[in-house]
Amino acid sequence: MANYINKNVPRVAIGAFYGQENCDITLSVTSAKDTGHDFIILPITHSNYKRFLFDQVDKDINDMQVNDNTFNNDKQHMEEWRKGHPFLKDDLIIKDNEHTDYLVGKISEWIDLDSSNHRVRTNSEIALNQQISWVSHLGFTAILAPTPTNSFANYARSLNRILGSLTYTHVWMRIPLVNEDMSCSNEIEMWERWNKLRTFCENHSKLSVALELPVDLPDEVYLERWFAEPIKAVILPTKIFLTNAKGYPVLSKKHQTFVKKLMKNKPNFVIFDDMTNKHQNGGFASYQEYIRHLNRTMPELDQIEQFASGYQDFLQSPLQPLMENLESSTYEIFEKDPVKYALYEKAVYHALLDRVAPESNQITVIMVVGAGRGPLVTRSLQAAEKAKRNVRIYAVEKNPNAFVTLQNMKSQEWGDKVTIVFGDMRKWKSPEQADILVSELLGSFGDNELSPECLDGAQKFLKSDGISIPSSYSTFISPLSSSKLHSEVSAYKDLTHFETPYVVMLQSVAILAKPQEIWKFEHPNGLMIIDNEGNPINNYHNTRYSKITFNVKNGGILHGIAGYFESVLYKNIIMSILPETHSEGMFSWFPIFFPLKTPIYLPSNSTIDIHFWRLSSSQKVWYEWCVDTSFGSSFIQNVGGRSSWIGL
Amino acid sequence: MANYINKNVPRVAIGAFYGQENCDITLSVTSAKDTGHDFIILPITHSNYKRFLFDQVDKDINDMQVNDNTFNNDKQHMEEWRKGHPFLKDDLIIKDNEHTDYLVGKISEWIDLDSSNHRVRTNSEIALNQQISWVSHLGFTAILAPTPTNSFANYARSLNRILGSLTYTHVWMRIPLVNEDMSCSNEIEMWERWNKLRTFCENHSKLSVALELPVDLPDEVYLERWFAEPIKAVILPTKIFLTNAKGYPVLSKKHQTFVKKLMKNKPNFVIFDDMTNKHQNGGFASYQEYIRHLNRTMPELDQIEQFASGYQDFLQSPLQPLMENLESSTYEIFEKDPVKYALYEKAVYHALLDRVAPESNQITVIMVVGAGRGPLVTRSLQAAEKAKRNVRIYAVEKNPNAFVTLQNMKSQEWGDKVTIVFGDMRKWKSPEQADILVSELLGSFGDNELSPECLDGAQKFLKSDGISIPSSYSTFISPLSSSKLHSEVSAYKDLTHFETPYVVMLQSVAILAKPQEIWKFEHPNGLMIIDNEGNPINNYHNTRYSKITFNVKNGGILHGIAGYFESVLYKNIIMSILPETHSEGMFSWFPIFFPLKTPIYLPSNSTIDIHFWRLSSSQKVWYEWCVDTSFGSSFIQNVGGRSSWIGL
Repeated sequence: MANYINKNVPRVAIGAFYGQENCDITLSVTSAKDTGHDFIILPITHSNYKRFLFDQVDKDINDMQVNDNTFNNDKQHMEEWRKGHPFLKDDLIIKDNEHTDYLVGKISEWIDLDSSNHRVRTNSEIALNQQISWVSHLGFTAILAPTPTNSFANYARSLNRILGSLTYTHVWMRIPLVNEDMSCSNEIEMWERWNKLRTFCENHSKLSVALELPVDLPDEVYLERWFAEPIKAVILPTKIFLTNAKGYPVLSKKHQTFVKKLMKNKPNFVIFDDMTNKHQNGGFASYQEYIRHLNRTMPELDQIEQFASGYQDFLQSPLQPLMENLESSTYEIFEKDPVKYALYEKAVYHALLDRVAPESNQITVIMVVGAGRGPLVTRSLQAAEKAKRNVRIYAVEKNPNAFVTLQNMKSQEWGDKVTIVFGDMRKWKSPEQADILVSELLGSFGDNELSPECLDGAQKFLKSDGISIPSSYSTFISPLSSSKLHSEVSAYKDLTHFETPYVVMLQSVAILAKPQEIWKFEHPNGLMIIDNEGNPINNYHNTRYSKITFNVKNGGILHGIAGYFESVLYKNIIMSILPETHSEGMFSWFPIFFPLKTPIYLPSNSTIDIHFWRLSSSQKVWYEWCVDTSFGSSFIQNVGGRSSWIGL
Repeated sequence: MANYINKNVPRVAIGAFYGQENCDITLSVTSAKDTGHDFIILPITHSNYKRFLFDQVDKDINDMQVNDNTFNNDKQHMEEWRKGHPFLKDDLIIKDNEHTDYLVGKISEWIDLDSSNHRVRTNSEIALNQQISWVSHLGFTAILAPTPTNSFANYARSLNRILGSLTYTHVWMRIPLVNEDMSCSNEIEMWERWNKLRTFCENHSKLSVALELPVDLPDEVYLERWFAEPIKAVILPTKIFLTNAKGYPVLSKKHQTFVKKLMKNKPNFVIFDDMTNKHQNGGFASYQEYIRHLNRTMPELDQIEQFASGYQDFLQSPLQPLMENLESSTYEIFEKDPVKYALYEKAVYHALLDRVAPESNQITVIMVVGAGRGPLVTRSLQAAEKAKRNVRIYAVEKNPNAFVTLQNMKSQEWGDKVTIVFGDMRKWKSPEQADILVSELLGSFGDNELSPECLDGAQKFLKSDGISIPSSYSTFISPLSSSKLHSEVSAYKDLTHFETPYVVMLQSVAILAKPQEIWKFEHPNGLMIIDNEGNPINNYHNTRYSKITFNVKNGGILHGIAGYFESVLYKNIIMSILPETHSEGMFSWFPIFFPLKTPIYLPSNSTIDIHFWRLSSSQKVWYEWCVDTSFGSSFIQNVGGRSSWIGL
C-alpha cells in the first residue's frame, strides 16, 4: 500500500515529559509550548515532600527540613499529617489550576506502597491519596501513576479505592513494554504484571496504560497482546530514536510499524526526555515533529476503514430484519457496498448461463425474496442482459415502507419483467415455481438473521432442481482477547449484556487462534420434513451444536468469541468476512462478538474447547456458548435464550 | 469416642432402587414399603419409549413396534412427536400422582445427548424434556438423572435449560465416586466431571449429587473434596456390602467411616439392588436396617455440635456489638459457654497471683470493660477469692439494657467490691488506674468486633505496667472449598453479599490448606501515638496487611477463605477456635467465611497467594481480600469497605 500524505488524518496529541523531580511550572509549560507540544507531564509535588514518607516517629526534630512554623515536626504533628493535614504550599509544583488543561500530573515515583515497613506503606498511601485528590480537585483529566514493582497488591488496592472516587480524572499507569532489568525471555512479564494489577482493580474503566517503548522491541507476537489493552498514552523515551543523516531523530522500521499500529487507537504520545541528548541538531521539538510526520504519512484508510471510522470497538446489536422493518437509511448504507452486489450479479449471471442453453427462448423465473428496496432485482436484470437470457422476476418484500420504493422502481426502471409482491416469503402462495431463488438474508454470523428459516419457507416455490443464491453459508469462530470490549459490556452491569452478541468493528483486540468452522447451512435443503402445505413441521433441522478445540500459542485473557461467515453464492463465487478470505472492499458486515461473563486466563500453548449451539423454539432462535479449559470453564451462557434471541 | 445408641438422632431417609428397566408400579411400591423403605426410585417411562430416540426418518413403518392407531409412524408423525406430542399412556411407568410422595423418578439412561448424530441428540433432548416436565407436573420432589458420559456439554446445556423452569423438583445427578472403567489413578476424574458439569450449569441450586459408592473406596484425601459438594443422595449398591458371620450385610470399616461422615449432612440413602444377590439371609430389608443401625450408633453430638445443630453452613452476619446493642437472649446464649469463662477465670487468677505478693493487703484494681450482663465480673470475683487477693472491680458497659442486669447483680450478688459504670469505655473518665483490664471483645476473626480500637481507648486508664486480658490475639486464614456456601451467597444475586464475611458453622466444606497466621494485636500497645487526652490520634496502627502463600496439595475449587482466631488470655492460657488448638467444648465462636465472587479452580499441588487487609477510616473498619494464583486472580473484594464494614 502506497505511503502518501493523508490530509484527513486528525492531529495526534503529543506531550512533553522531562525527567527531573523538581521544576518551575511556568518555565516548563512555556518550554513545552515553544517546542510544539500539546501537553506536559509534571510532578505534582516537590521532592522534599518525600520527608513525610520516610518519617521516623522517634527521629530528631532537627533532621526534618521543614521551615514552616505551622507544622512542627514532633510525633503528634506527624500524626496530624497522617490524619489529613492539607498540603503545604511549598511542597507543591502544581499549585493551582492555571494550566490545568495543559497538564498531566505525575505521582511521586518514590512512594512505596508495598514496603515491608507498615509505616512507610501507610504514609505512601496517604501521599498517594493526597496527590491524586489534589489534581482531581483541580479538574485534571489524567494522572501518570508509577510503574508497579514486583510486588504490588497493596499499590493496586490503594489505587482501586481511589479510582471509584474519580469523576473526570483518568489514571495512566506507566508500564515499560519490556522490563529492562530482566533477560529477554521475559517479554510477557510486564504484560502479566499489568494484567494482574488491573484484575485486582476489577478492570476499572478509569485505569489505563501509558506504554513505554524500549530500545529493542520484542517479536511481533509479544506486541500483539498490547492491542487488546486500554492504551491511553505511548511514552517514547528519546533514547529509542535513531539518528538520520542530518542528525535528526527517526525511529527504526520495527518501531515505526508498531507506533503506526498504535496510532489507529488514537492514544496520546509522550516524548520522554531521558537526558541522553542524542539529537542535538533538531532540539527537543524534532521528536514531536517526527511523530506528527509519521501520523500524516499513515496509509490512507481503505474503503472498509473509511466506512468503519468511528465504529471501531463500538458494540451494536445485530439487526432483526425479520421482526423489525429496516429503515430506509439502513438500506441505503448497505446498498452502497461496491463489492457485495457485484458478487451477487456474477452469481446470477453464471447460474443463468448454466441453467439455459444459449439462444434458447426459455424464460428463467428468478425470485428475489426479501427484495428490500430492490438492489438484487436490478442486479438480476443486469445479469440477464449480460448473459443474454430471458427472465421473469418476482420481488417479494414484507416491509411496507421498502415496498413503496419497489413500486417506484418497477414503474420507473424495471417494467413488465418484474412482478412485485407484498408479503412474507414464508407465507406467500406463489403463482409458479422458481428456477433461481435470490436472497440476501445473511448476518455477520451467517445464519443469525434467520436466513435458514426464511429460505425453508421459500423453498416450496423453488423447483426441485432449482438454484438458491446463496447456495450455502458457513459460520466460523475464534477465541478473542479484548479488555476494552469486555469493559464496554461490563459497563451495563447486568448479565443480559454478557449474554448478547454484538456486531463490532474489531480494533483493540487480539485474536488468540485462527478461526474454525462451526457449522454450515445449505439451500435448498433436501432433508427437511414438510407438512402438506410445504412448510417445515418443526425447526430441529436448523439447530446446530459444535465443539471446537483451539490451540492458543500466545497466552492472553479470553474475553469472548469472534464470529464470521463465509458463503458460497454460486459454485466458486464466494462472499466472505472471514479475515483470511475476506471479499476485498466489502463493508456490509463487521464481525460478531459473543462476550464471556468471566474472562479466563490462558497460558501460552494452551488448549481450549468452545461449545456453540444454535437452538430454536417455535417462537425464536438463539445461541448458547461456553468455554472449557483445564484452567477453568465458563457456564453455558444465554441458557434458553434468556438474554438474547431472534424472533421468528 | 464411645459408640452407643443415640436416641436423639433423627430417622434417616432410605430409598429402594431396583435395577430393572420395566416394572409394575403398584408391585414395586408395595415391595419397597414392605421392606421398610421410605421411598423408591422408579423409571419414568417403559423401555419401549426408546423407539423415539433411535428413529430413522426413512425407516420402514413396520419396524416400529407401536400399536396405537392414533400415532402412525410415518415421517410426519415422528416430526409431530418432536414438535411436542404428549406421552402415550402405555409409554409410562409413572402414570399419575397416586404415589408422588413416595417416588423419585428416574430419567431413561439410554438418552444420548452427546451423540454425534444430530437426530439422536435432538430426540434425546426432547425425551429428557418430556420426562422431566412430566414428573415436575406431578409435583415430584426429586428426579434421578443419568451419569454424564465423557462428553457431556450438550447434556449440561439441556439440563441447564430445564433447571430454570423447575419449582419443587430437584435433580439428583447420579455420580459414581470412582469411574470403574478407569484405572485407579483417576480418583478425581468423576469429581472433575461433576465439577465441570455444574460449572456449565452456573452452579444451579436445583442440581445436586447422588453419589454412588464403589466396592473399593479411594484414599481419604480423595473423599474429602466430596464434603464440599451438594450431596442430596448416597447410592449404596448391594455389591459393596460385606457379609457378616450370620450372612447379613455390613459395610467395611472404611465405608462405615465415610457413610457416617456423609450422614452429618443428612442426605437420602438409596439401596441399589444390583442383582448380585449376595445376602440372601436378610433379604432386601436387611440393607436399610443396617444403615439405620449405623445412623443410630453415630457418636453422640459433642457440646459444640449440639449447640450448632441447625446452624451448619448457615450464613450469619457477624455481630456489631459496638454499633448495636446486643439483645438479652444473645448474652444468655454466650454466657452458657462452659469453657470460655473458665479460661478467663484462670487467666485473672494467675494475673492476680503474679501481681501481688501473698498475704499483702494491697488492693488490685480490675476493670471489666464491656461487662455485658456481668459474667466476667463474677468470674473475676471468684478468681480473687481463690487467689486470696483483695480486689476492687469496675464494670463498664455502654448497653443500657444490659446495665439494668448489672445493677441487679451488684445489689443481689456482688456488693461493694464492684462499681458499675454506664458508658463507652473509649470515653469514660476513670477515677483511678487499673491493674488488670479484662475484656471479651473478640469476634471469630479476632479483631473483627473492634477489640483493638476499644482497648486502645481503655488503655488510658490502665497502669503503665498493667495487664490486659486478653494480652494478644492472632488471626488465621485458610483457603476453602464449598460449593454449598458459594451458592448460598450467590442466591442473593448481588455483589454486596459476596463482599461480606459470614459467621458460619462450617460443614459442607473442604479446607484446602492448613490455616496460617495473618496478623496479631497486642495489649497494652506501647507504640500508639496519643493526644493530650490519652486517645489515639488516628487508627493507622490498627491497620494490617498480609500476604500468605498456601500450598494446595489436593486440588479443588476455591470458593472463599475461612478465618479463625487464637488468643493469649494471659501467659500460657490460650483461648482458640483454630481447628488445631481449639479450646475443647467452647462454642461461643464459629469460624468466619469470606466469599470469593468468582470461584477459582486449583489443580493439585498448586500455590496460591492470599492478600488480606484490615483497613480503617475515622468512621469504620473493614477488610479487603484477594487471591492470586497462576491460573487466575480475583479482584480485590470490598474496596474501601463498600459492601461490609464495622462502625467505630
